[in-house]
Amino acid sequence: MEDQHPTAPSHFTAAIIVIGNEILSGRTKDLNLGWLGEQLNLRGIRVKEARFIADDEAAIIDAVNSLRQHYQYVFTTGGIGPTHDDITAACIAKAFDTPLTEHPAARALLEEYYGDRLNESRLRMAKTPEGARLIDNPVSAAPGFQMENVYVMAGIPKIMQAMFHGFADDLSGGQTLKSVAIDCHFGEGDIAPGLTEIQSRHPDVEIGSYPACTPGDIAVSIILRHSDDSTLKAVAGEVKDMIETLERKKIAKSGC
Amino acid sequence: MEDQHPTAPSHFTAAIIVIGNEILSGRTKDLNLGWLGEQLNLRGIRVKEARFIADDEAAIIDAVNSLRQHYQYVFTTGGIGPTHDDITAACIAKAFDTPLTEHPAARALLEEYYGDRLNESRLRMAKTPEGARLIDNPVSAAPGFQMENVYVMAGIPKIMQAMFHGFADDLSGGQTLKSVAIDCHFGEGDIAPGLTEIQSRHPDVEIGSYPACTPGDIAVSIILRHSDDSTLKAVAGEVKDMIETLERKKIAKSGC
Repeated sequence: MEDQHPTAPSHFTAAIIVIGNEILSGRTKDLNLGWLGEQLNLRGIRVKEARFIADDEAAIIDAVNSLRQHYQYVFTTGGIGPTHDDITAACIAKAFDTPLTEHPAARALLEEYYGDRLNESRLRMAKTPEGARLIDNPVSAAPGFQMENVYVMAGIPKIMQAMFHGFADDLSGGQTLKSVAIDCHFGEGDIAPGLTEIQSRHPDVEIGSYPACTPGDIAVSIILRHSDDSTLKAVAGEVKDMIETLERKKIAKSGC
Repeated sequence: MEDQHPTAPSHFTAAIIVIGNEILSGRTKDLNLGWLGEQLNLRGIRVKEARFIADDEAAIIDAVNSLRQHYQYVFTTGGIGPTHDDITAACIAKAFDTPLTEHPAARALLEEYYGDRLNESRLRMAKTPEGARLIDNPVSAAPGFQMENVYVMAGIPKIMQAMFHGFADDLSGGQTLKSVAIDCHFGEGDIAPGLTEIQSRHPDVEIGSYPACTPGDIAVSIILRHSDDSTLKAVAGEVKDMIETLERKKIAKSGC
Protein backbone atom coordinates (compact mmCIF):
# COMPACT_ATOMS: atom_id res chain seq x y z
CA MET A 1 0.00 0.00 0.00
CA GLU A 2 2.96 2.34 0.54
CA ASP A 3 3.00 3.65 -3.00
CA GLN A 4 -0.43 5.17 -2.39
CA HIS A 5 1.13 7.28 0.35
CA PRO A 6 4.36 8.66 -1.05
CA THR A 7 4.32 11.51 1.45
CA ALA A 8 4.44 9.18 4.49
CA PRO A 9 1.24 10.04 6.33
CA SER A 10 1.57 10.86 10.02
CA HIS A 11 -0.59 7.87 10.76
CA PHE A 12 -1.84 4.80 8.94
CA THR A 13 -5.39 3.56 9.24
CA ALA A 14 -6.95 0.19 9.97
CA ALA A 15 -10.31 -1.50 10.38
CA ILE A 16 -11.08 -4.55 12.50
CA ILE A 17 -13.71 -7.17 11.70
CA VAL A 18 -14.79 -9.35 14.62
CA ILE A 19 -16.60 -12.41 13.27
CA GLY A 20 -18.88 -14.59 15.39
CA ASN A 21 -22.50 -14.98 16.45
CA GLU A 22 -21.48 -15.42 20.09
CA ILE A 23 -20.16 -11.87 20.40
CA LEU A 24 -23.33 -10.29 19.02
CA SER A 25 -25.59 -12.25 21.34
CA GLY A 26 -23.71 -10.91 24.35
CA ARG A 27 -22.69 -14.44 25.39
CA THR A 28 -18.97 -13.87 24.79
CA LYS A 29 -17.35 -10.51 25.53
CA ASP A 30 -14.93 -9.40 22.86
CA LEU A 31 -11.39 -8.80 24.08
CA ASN A 32 -9.74 -8.38 20.70
CA LEU A 33 -10.83 -4.88 19.64
CA GLY A 34 -9.32 -3.11 22.65
CA TRP A 35 -6.11 -5.11 22.51
CA LEU A 36 -5.60 -4.54 18.79
CA GLY A 37 -6.49 -0.85 19.14
CA GLU A 38 -3.72 -0.37 21.68
CA GLN A 39 -1.13 -2.46 19.83
CA LEU A 40 -1.78 -0.78 16.50
CA ASN A 41 -1.68 2.69 18.00
CA LEU A 42 1.79 1.94 19.42
CA ARG A 43 2.86 1.27 15.84
CA GLY A 44 1.35 4.47 14.47
CA ILE A 45 -1.68 2.74 12.97
CA ARG A 46 -5.10 4.13 13.89
CA VAL A 47 -8.15 1.90 14.10
CA LYS A 48 -10.83 4.00 12.43
CA GLU A 49 -13.66 1.49 12.37
CA ALA A 50 -14.61 -1.95 13.71
CA ARG A 51 -17.43 -4.19 12.60
CA PHE A 52 -18.87 -7.06 14.60
CA ILE A 53 -20.68 -9.43 12.31
CA ALA A 54 -22.26 -12.88 12.44
CA ASP A 55 -20.90 -16.06 10.86
CA ASP A 56 -22.76 -15.07 7.72
CA GLU A 57 -21.31 -15.25 4.22
CA ALA A 58 -22.86 -12.08 2.80
CA ALA A 59 -21.98 -10.05 5.89
CA ILE A 60 -18.33 -11.17 5.88
CA ILE A 61 -17.84 -10.54 2.15
CA ASP A 62 -19.50 -7.15 2.36
CA ALA A 63 -17.45 -6.03 5.36
CA VAL A 64 -14.13 -7.21 3.91
CA ASN A 65 -14.72 -5.62 0.53
CA SER A 66 -15.95 -2.30 1.80
CA LEU A 67 -13.24 -1.91 4.45
CA ARG A 68 -10.18 -3.07 2.50
CA GLN A 69 -10.76 -0.26 0.00
CA HIS A 70 -10.97 2.41 2.68
CA TYR A 71 -8.16 1.59 5.09
CA GLN A 72 -4.52 0.63 4.78
CA TYR A 73 -5.04 -2.48 6.89
CA VAL A 74 -7.93 -4.78 7.75
CA PHE A 75 -7.65 -7.32 10.57
CA THR A 76 -10.22 -10.05 11.05
CA THR A 77 -10.65 -12.28 14.09
CA GLY A 78 -12.72 -15.45 14.35
CA GLY A 79 -14.19 -18.18 12.19
CA ILE A 80 -11.06 -20.04 11.06
CA GLY A 81 -11.49 -23.29 13.00
CA PRO A 82 -12.51 -26.76 11.76
CA THR A 83 -16.27 -26.72 12.37
CA HIS A 84 -19.16 -25.99 9.99
CA ASP A 85 -19.62 -22.49 11.39
CA ASP A 86 -16.03 -21.53 10.54
CA ILE A 87 -16.54 -19.91 7.16
CA THR A 88 -14.14 -16.98 7.22
CA ALA A 89 -11.49 -18.38 4.84
CA ALA A 90 -14.09 -19.35 2.23
CA CYS A 91 -15.67 -15.89 2.48
CA ILE A 92 -12.33 -14.09 2.11
CA ALA A 93 -11.69 -16.13 -1.05
CA LYS A 94 -15.07 -15.02 -2.40
CA ALA A 95 -14.39 -11.41 -1.41
CA PHE A 96 -11.17 -11.53 -3.46
CA ASP A 97 -12.85 -13.56 -6.22
CA THR A 98 -10.19 -16.24 -6.02
CA PRO A 99 -10.47 -20.02 -5.42
CA LEU A 100 -10.14 -21.52 -1.93
CA THR A 101 -7.48 -24.21 -2.18
CA GLU A 102 -5.39 -26.33 0.14
CA HIS A 103 -2.15 -24.55 1.05
CA PRO A 104 0.68 -27.15 1.03
CA ALA A 105 2.63 -25.50 3.85
CA ALA A 106 -0.51 -25.22 5.98
CA ARG A 107 -1.24 -28.91 5.41
CA ALA A 108 2.31 -29.80 6.45
CA LEU A 109 1.89 -27.80 9.69
CA LEU A 110 -1.37 -29.59 10.50
CA GLU A 111 0.09 -33.03 9.68
CA GLU A 112 2.96 -32.43 12.04
CA TYR A 113 0.75 -31.06 14.84
CA TYR A 114 -2.16 -33.51 14.67
CA GLY A 115 -0.47 -36.70 13.38
CA ASP A 116 -3.09 -39.43 13.04
CA ARG A 117 -5.76 -37.16 14.56
CA LEU A 118 -5.79 -35.12 11.33
CA ASN A 119 -9.19 -35.63 9.73
CA GLU A 120 -11.20 -33.98 6.96
CA SER A 121 -12.61 -31.36 9.34
CA ARG A 122 -9.17 -30.30 10.56
CA LEU A 123 -7.89 -30.25 6.98
CA ARG A 124 -10.39 -27.45 6.30
CA MET A 125 -7.95 -25.27 8.27
CA ALA A 126 -5.32 -25.79 5.53
CA LYS A 127 -7.52 -24.08 2.96
CA THR A 128 -6.71 -20.50 2.03
CA PRO A 129 -7.57 -18.18 -0.85
CA GLU A 130 -5.05 -18.64 -3.66
CA GLY A 131 -2.15 -16.24 -3.25
CA ALA A 132 -2.49 -16.04 0.55
CA ARG A 133 0.59 -15.78 2.74
CA LEU A 134 0.41 -17.83 5.94
CA ILE A 135 0.42 -16.25 9.40
CA ASP A 136 2.23 -18.36 11.99
CA ASN A 137 0.23 -19.82 14.90
CA PRO A 138 2.73 -20.81 17.59
CA VAL A 139 -0.09 -21.89 19.97
CA SER A 140 -2.08 -24.48 18.04
CA ALA A 141 -0.49 -24.78 14.57
CA ALA A 142 -3.49 -23.95 12.34
CA PRO A 143 -2.29 -20.78 10.60
CA GLY A 144 -3.96 -17.51 9.83
CA PHE A 145 -3.28 -15.86 6.50
CA GLN A 146 -2.78 -12.55 4.76
CA MET A 147 -4.41 -11.56 1.46
CA GLU A 148 -3.08 -8.20 0.28
CA ASN A 149 -3.91 -5.78 3.12
CA VAL A 150 -6.29 -8.17 4.93
CA TYR A 151 -4.92 -10.15 7.91
CA VAL A 152 -7.06 -13.12 8.94
CA MET A 153 -6.58 -14.30 12.52
CA ALA A 154 -8.11 -16.65 15.08
CA GLY A 155 -10.77 -15.40 17.50
CA ILE A 156 -9.32 -16.86 20.72
CA PRO A 157 -7.44 -13.90 22.23
CA LYS A 158 -4.21 -15.64 23.11
CA ILE A 159 -3.91 -17.21 19.66
CA MET A 160 -4.83 -13.93 17.96
CA GLN A 161 -2.22 -12.10 20.01
CA ALA A 162 0.49 -14.63 19.17
CA MET A 163 -0.39 -14.39 15.48
CA PHE A 164 -0.29 -10.59 15.60
CA HIS A 165 3.13 -10.50 17.26
CA GLY A 166 4.43 -12.74 14.46
CA PHE A 167 3.79 -10.18 11.72
CA ALA A 168 3.51 -6.89 13.63
CA ASP A 169 7.09 -5.84 12.85
CA ASP A 170 6.35 -6.06 9.13
CA LEU A 171 3.50 -3.53 9.29
CA SER A 172 4.24 -0.05 8.02
CA GLY A 173 3.20 2.47 10.61
CA GLY A 174 3.44 6.16 11.16
CA GLN A 175 4.15 8.13 14.27
CA THR A 176 2.62 6.85 17.49
CA LEU A 177 -0.23 9.01 18.63
CA LYS A 178 0.48 10.04 22.20
CA SER A 179 -2.17 11.13 24.64
CA VAL A 180 -2.50 13.31 27.71
CA ALA A 181 -5.44 13.01 30.11
CA ILE A 182 -6.59 15.98 32.16
CA ASP A 183 -9.30 15.35 34.74
CA CYS A 184 -11.50 18.04 36.16
CA HIS A 185 -14.54 18.37 38.38
CA PHE A 186 -16.74 20.48 36.17
CA GLY A 187 -19.65 19.30 34.09
CA GLU A 188 -19.02 18.79 30.39
CA GLY A 189 -21.31 21.74 29.67
CA ASP A 190 -19.12 24.03 31.81
CA ILE A 191 -15.89 23.23 30.00
CA ALA A 192 -17.45 22.95 26.55
CA PRO A 193 -17.15 26.63 25.51
CA GLY A 194 -13.44 26.81 26.43
CA LEU A 195 -12.73 23.41 24.89
CA THR A 196 -14.42 24.35 21.63
CA GLU A 197 -12.32 27.49 21.46
CA ILE A 198 -9.06 25.57 22.09
CA GLN A 199 -10.02 22.91 19.52
CA SER A 200 -10.67 25.59 16.90
CA ARG A 201 -7.16 27.00 17.41
CA HIS A 202 -5.57 23.51 17.23
CA PRO A 203 -7.54 21.56 14.63
CA ASP A 204 -4.78 18.92 14.27
CA VAL A 205 -4.94 17.93 17.94
CA GLU A 206 -7.68 15.42 18.72
CA ILE A 207 -9.53 16.69 21.79
CA GLY A 208 -12.09 14.41 23.39
CA SER A 209 -14.21 14.90 26.48
CA TYR A 210 -15.33 11.81 28.41
CA PRO A 211 -17.65 12.21 31.35
CA ALA A 212 -17.39 9.74 34.19
CA CYS A 213 -20.67 9.10 35.87
CA THR A 214 -19.69 8.47 39.46
CA PRO A 215 -22.55 8.89 41.94
CA GLY A 216 -22.23 12.15 43.87
CA ASP A 217 -19.38 13.44 41.74
CA ILE A 218 -19.11 15.25 38.44
CA ALA A 219 -15.89 14.44 36.64
CA VAL A 220 -14.70 14.72 33.08
CA SER A 221 -11.55 13.36 31.49
CA ILE A 222 -10.25 15.54 28.70
CA ILE A 223 -8.05 13.49 26.39
CA LEU A 224 -5.64 15.20 24.00
CA ARG A 225 -3.97 13.19 21.21
CA HIS A 226 -1.14 14.15 18.92
CA SER A 227 2.09 12.60 17.68
CA ASP A 228 4.24 15.51 18.84
CA ASP A 229 5.10 15.88 22.54
CA SER A 230 5.70 19.63 22.52
CA THR A 231 2.38 20.33 20.78
CA LEU A 232 0.61 18.13 23.31
CA LYS A 233 2.30 19.90 26.20
CA ALA A 234 1.38 23.36 24.89
CA VAL A 235 -2.28 22.48 24.33
CA ALA A 236 -2.47 20.71 27.70
CA GLY A 237 -1.26 23.97 29.25
CA GLU A 238 -4.09 25.86 27.58
CA VAL A 239 -6.65 23.34 28.83
CA LYS A 240 -5.30 23.56 32.38
CA ASP A 241 -5.41 27.38 32.23
CA MET A 242 -9.02 27.20 31.08
CA ILE A 243 -9.93 24.93 34.01
CA GLU A 244 -8.13 27.18 36.51
CA THR A 245 -10.07 30.17 35.20
CA LEU A 246 -13.32 28.25 35.73
CA GLU A 247 -12.21 27.39 39.29
CA ARG A 248 -11.43 31.02 40.10
CA LYS A 249 -14.84 32.10 38.78
CA LYS A 250 -16.52 29.43 40.87
CA ILE A 251 -14.74 30.58 44.04
CA ALA A 252 -15.51 34.22 43.27
CA LYS A 253 -19.18 33.37 42.74
CA SER A 254 -19.42 31.39 46.00
CA GLY A 255 -18.10 34.46 47.80
CA CYS A 256 -15.15 32.68 49.49
CA MET B 1 -41.86 -1.54 10.40
CA GLU B 2 -44.47 -4.19 11.19
CA ASP B 3 -46.25 -3.91 7.86
CA GLN B 4 -43.10 -5.17 6.19
CA HIS B 5 -43.47 -8.38 8.19
CA PRO B 6 -47.09 -9.38 8.03
CA THR B 7 -46.24 -13.00 8.79
CA ALA B 8 -44.66 -12.16 12.19
CA PRO B 9 -41.07 -13.32 11.76
CA SER B 10 -39.73 -15.61 14.46
CA HIS B 11 -37.21 -12.93 15.26
CA PHE B 12 -36.62 -9.28 14.52
CA THR B 13 -33.21 -7.89 13.65
CA ALA B 14 -31.15 -4.98 14.92
CA ALA B 15 -27.81 -3.27 14.42
CA ILE B 16 -25.86 -1.31 17.00
CA ILE B 17 -23.61 1.66 16.27
CA VAL B 18 -21.10 2.53 19.00
CA ILE B 19 -19.80 6.05 18.39
CA GLY B 20 -16.57 7.37 19.92
CA ASN B 21 -12.85 7.65 19.28
CA GLU B 22 -12.06 6.44 22.78
CA ILE B 23 -13.45 2.95 22.16
CA LEU B 24 -11.44 2.44 18.96
CA SER B 25 -8.18 3.49 20.59
CA GLY B 26 -8.62 0.81 23.26
CA ARG B 27 -8.68 3.46 26.00
CA THR B 28 -12.29 2.80 26.98
CA LYS B 29 -13.75 -0.70 26.91
CA ASP B 30 -17.22 -0.85 25.43
CA LEU B 31 -19.86 -2.28 27.76
CA ASN B 32 -22.90 -1.41 25.66
CA LEU B 33 -22.78 -4.02 22.88
CA GLY B 34 -22.93 -7.03 25.21
CA TRP B 35 -25.63 -5.51 27.39
CA LEU B 36 -27.83 -4.52 24.44
CA GLY B 37 -27.26 -7.91 22.78
CA GLU B 38 -28.62 -9.70 25.84
CA GLN B 39 -31.52 -7.32 26.43
CA LEU B 40 -32.65 -7.37 22.81
CA ASN B 41 -32.42 -11.14 22.60
CA LEU B 42 -34.75 -11.42 25.60
CA ARG B 43 -37.28 -9.43 23.56
CA GLY B 44 -36.89 -11.60 20.46
CA ILE B 45 -34.72 -9.09 18.62
CA ARG B 46 -31.41 -10.37 17.22
CA VAL B 47 -28.39 -8.12 16.92
CA LYS B 48 -26.99 -9.03 13.51
CA GLU B 49 -24.25 -6.45 13.23
CA ALA B 50 -22.46 -3.80 15.26
CA ARG B 51 -20.23 -1.02 14.05
CA PHE B 52 -17.75 0.90 16.16
CA ILE B 53 -16.93 4.19 14.53
CA ALA B 54 -15.11 7.41 15.35
CA ASP B 55 -16.70 10.79 16.05
CA ASP B 56 -16.58 11.41 12.31
CA GLU B 57 -19.43 12.87 10.30
CA ALA B 58 -19.03 10.77 7.16
CA ALA B 59 -18.63 7.55 9.16
CA ILE B 60 -21.74 8.19 11.26
CA ILE B 61 -23.94 9.12 8.29
CA ASP B 62 -22.74 6.12 6.27
CA ALA B 63 -23.29 3.66 9.11
CA VAL B 64 -26.78 4.98 9.96
CA ASN B 65 -27.96 5.03 6.37
CA SER B 66 -26.65 1.61 5.44
CA LEU B 67 -27.87 -0.13 8.59
CA ARG B 68 -31.35 1.40 8.91
CA GLN B 69 -32.26 -0.03 5.51
CA HIS B 70 -31.15 -3.56 6.43
CA TYR B 71 -32.44 -4.08 9.94
CA GLN B 72 -35.70 -3.49 11.76
CA TYR B 73 -33.95 -1.49 14.47
CA VAL B 74 -30.77 0.54 14.78
CA PHE B 75 -29.48 1.63 18.19
CA THR B 76 -26.68 4.17 18.54
CA THR B 77 -24.69 4.95 21.68
CA GLY B 78 -22.42 7.92 22.27
CA GLY B 79 -21.79 11.44 21.03
CA ILE B 80 -24.88 13.26 22.33
CA GLY B 81 -23.27 15.43 25.04
CA PRO B 82 -22.56 19.19 25.05
CA THR B 83 -18.95 19.30 23.79
CA HIS B 84 -17.54 19.95 20.32
CA ASP B 85 -16.88 16.23 19.73
CA ASP B 86 -20.56 15.34 20.29
CA ILE B 87 -21.81 15.36 16.73
CA THR B 88 -24.23 12.42 16.64
CA ALA B 89 -27.50 14.41 16.55
CA ALA B 90 -26.27 16.66 13.72
CA CYS B 91 -25.14 13.59 11.76
CA ILE B 92 -28.45 11.77 12.24
CA ALA B 93 -30.23 14.85 10.89
CA LYS B 94 -27.98 14.76 7.83
CA ALA B 95 -28.51 11.02 7.41
CA PHE B 96 -32.28 11.64 7.32
CA ASP B 97 -31.81 14.81 5.23
CA THR B 98 -33.80 16.86 7.71
CA PRO B 99 -32.86 20.05 9.64
CA LEU B 100 -31.43 19.91 13.15
CA THR B 101 -33.59 22.19 15.27
CA GLU B 102 -34.18 22.91 18.93
CA HIS B 103 -36.81 20.58 20.39
CA PRO B 104 -39.04 22.64 22.74
CA ALA B 105 -39.66 19.76 25.16
CA ALA B 106 -35.95 18.95 25.29
CA ARG B 107 -35.17 22.59 26.05
CA ALA B 108 -37.72 22.59 28.85
CA LEU B 109 -36.11 19.49 30.38
CA LEU B 110 -32.68 21.10 30.28
CA GLU B 111 -33.97 24.40 31.75
CA GLU B 112 -35.49 22.56 34.65
CA TYR B 113 -32.43 20.39 35.28
CA TYR B 114 -29.66 22.98 34.84
CA GLY B 115 -31.39 26.20 35.94
CA ASP B 116 -28.94 29.09 35.62
CA ARG B 117 -26.13 26.69 34.64
CA LEU B 118 -27.80 26.21 31.24
CA ASN B 119 -25.45 27.68 28.65
CA GLU B 120 -25.12 27.56 24.86
CA SER B 121 -23.06 24.36 25.01
CA ARG B 122 -25.67 22.54 27.08
CA LEU B 123 -28.43 23.86 24.83
CA ARG B 124 -26.84 21.87 21.99
CA MET B 125 -28.35 18.82 23.74
CA ALA B 126 -31.85 20.16 22.99
CA LYS B 127 -31.25 19.93 19.26
CA THR B 128 -32.76 17.00 17.39
CA PRO B 129 -33.56 16.20 13.79
CA GLU B 130 -37.02 17.52 12.89
CA GLY B 131 -39.65 14.87 13.53
CA ALA B 132 -37.66 13.14 16.28
CA ARG B 133 -39.40 11.67 19.30
CA LEU B 134 -37.57 12.19 22.60
CA ILE B 135 -36.19 9.33 24.67
CA ASP B 136 -36.38 9.95 28.40
CA ASN B 137 -33.14 10.28 30.40
CA PRO B 138 -34.01 9.79 34.08
CA VAL B 139 -30.34 10.07 35.10
CA SER B 140 -29.16 13.41 33.75
CA ALA B 141 -32.12 14.97 31.87
CA ALA B 142 -30.56 15.47 28.40
CA PRO B 143 -32.77 13.22 26.28
CA GLY B 144 -31.98 10.74 23.54
CA PHE B 145 -34.28 10.57 20.54
CA GLN B 146 -35.86 8.26 18.02
CA MET B 147 -36.01 8.91 14.26
CA GLU B 148 -38.09 6.22 12.52
CA ASN B 149 -36.31 2.94 13.39
CA VAL B 150 -33.15 4.60 14.73
CA TYR B 151 -32.79 5.01 18.52
CA VAL B 152 -30.12 7.48 19.59
CA MET B 153 -28.79 7.00 23.13
CA ALA B 154 -26.02 8.22 25.42
CA GLY B 155 -22.70 6.37 25.61
CA ILE B 156 -22.37 6.18 29.40
CA PRO B 157 -23.64 2.68 30.22
CA LYS B 158 -25.94 3.53 33.10
CA ILE B 159 -27.59 6.39 31.17
CA MET B 160 -27.90 4.23 28.04
CA GLN B 161 -29.49 1.43 30.09
CA ALA B 162 -31.99 3.79 31.71
CA MET B 163 -32.91 5.20 28.30
CA PHE B 164 -33.34 1.71 26.86
CA HIS B 165 -35.62 0.57 29.69
CA GLY B 166 -37.81 3.61 29.01
CA PHE B 167 -38.75 2.52 25.50
CA ALA B 168 -37.99 -1.22 25.50
CA ASP B 169 -41.61 -2.21 26.09
CA ASP B 170 -42.63 -0.39 22.90
CA LEU B 171 -40.31 -2.45 20.69
CA SER B 172 -41.90 -5.14 18.58
CA GLY B 173 -40.10 -8.40 19.10
CA GLY B 174 -40.44 -11.99 18.11
CA GLN B 175 -39.86 -15.13 20.05
CA THR B 176 -36.90 -15.16 22.41
CA LEU B 177 -34.10 -17.29 21.09
CA LYS B 178 -33.22 -19.79 23.79
CA SER B 179 -29.89 -21.50 24.06
CA VAL B 180 -28.44 -24.71 25.40
CA ALA B 181 -24.71 -25.14 26.08
CA ILE B 182 -23.09 -28.56 25.93
CA ASP B 183 -19.45 -28.79 27.01
CA CYS B 184 -17.14 -31.58 25.99
CA HIS B 185 -13.48 -32.47 26.22
CA PHE B 186 -12.76 -33.22 22.60
CA GLY B 187 -11.00 -30.99 20.14
CA GLU B 188 -13.17 -29.04 17.73
CA GLY B 189 -11.79 -31.15 14.89
CA ASP B 190 -13.01 -34.35 16.58
CA ILE B 191 -16.60 -33.20 16.97
CA ALA B 192 -16.74 -31.33 13.66
CA PRO B 193 -17.88 -34.24 11.44
CA GLY B 194 -20.76 -35.18 13.76
CA LEU B 195 -21.73 -31.56 14.31
CA THR B 196 -21.81 -30.85 10.57
CA GLU B 197 -24.10 -33.82 10.08
CA ILE B 198 -26.47 -32.71 12.85
CA GLN B 199 -26.50 -29.13 11.51
CA SER B 200 -27.41 -30.38 8.02
CA ARG B 201 -30.44 -32.22 9.42
CA HIS B 202 -31.55 -29.18 11.47
CA PRO B 203 -30.79 -26.11 9.36
CA ASP B 204 -33.11 -23.90 11.44
CA VAL B 205 -31.19 -24.53 14.67
CA GLU B 206 -28.15 -22.30 15.09
CA ILE B 207 -25.26 -24.53 16.14
CA GLY B 208 -22.01 -22.88 17.20
CA SER B 209 -18.79 -24.39 18.48
CA TYR B 210 -16.59 -22.30 20.78
CA PRO B 211 -13.24 -23.64 21.88
CA ALA B 212 -11.93 -22.63 25.26
CA CYS B 213 -8.19 -22.41 25.35
CA THR B 214 -7.35 -23.44 28.89
CA PRO B 215 -3.75 -24.59 29.33
CA GLY B 216 -3.52 -28.37 29.63
CA ASP B 217 -7.16 -28.89 28.74
CA ILE B 218 -9.08 -29.20 25.51
CA ALA B 219 -12.66 -28.05 25.89
CA VAL B 220 -15.35 -26.94 23.50
CA SER B 221 -18.71 -25.38 24.26
CA ILE B 222 -21.35 -26.31 21.73
CA ILE B 223 -24.14 -23.74 21.78
CA LEU B 224 -27.54 -24.52 20.27
CA ARG B 225 -30.04 -21.72 19.67
CA HIS B 226 -33.70 -21.93 18.74
CA SER B 227 -36.95 -20.37 19.89
CA ASP B 228 -38.66 -23.71 20.56
CA ASP B 229 -37.77 -25.69 23.69
CA SER B 230 -38.70 -29.12 22.39
CA THR B 231 -36.63 -28.67 19.22
CA LEU B 232 -33.68 -27.56 21.32
CA LYS B 233 -34.07 -30.54 23.61
CA ALA B 234 -34.20 -33.00 20.72
CA VAL B 235 -31.13 -31.59 18.99
CA ALA B 236 -29.25 -31.38 22.30
CA GLY B 237 -29.97 -35.11 22.69
CA GLU B 238 -28.41 -35.80 19.30
CA VAL B 239 -25.30 -33.78 20.18
CA LYS B 240 -24.94 -35.63 23.49
CA ASP B 241 -25.29 -39.00 21.71
CA MET B 242 -22.61 -37.94 19.25
CA ILE B 243 -20.24 -37.04 22.09
CA GLU B 244 -20.94 -40.32 23.93
CA THR B 245 -20.14 -42.26 20.76
CA LEU B 246 -16.82 -40.42 20.52
CA GLU B 247 -16.10 -41.24 24.17
CA ARG B 248 -16.83 -44.95 23.64
CA LYS B 249 -14.51 -44.99 20.60
CA LYS B 250 -11.79 -43.31 22.61
CA ILE B 251 -12.08 -45.87 25.41
CA ALA B 252 -12.12 -48.77 22.92
CA LYS B 253 -9.04 -47.36 21.21
CA SER B 254 -7.14 -46.97 24.46
CA GLY B 255 -7.83 -50.64 25.17
CA CYS B 256 -9.49 -50.12 28.57
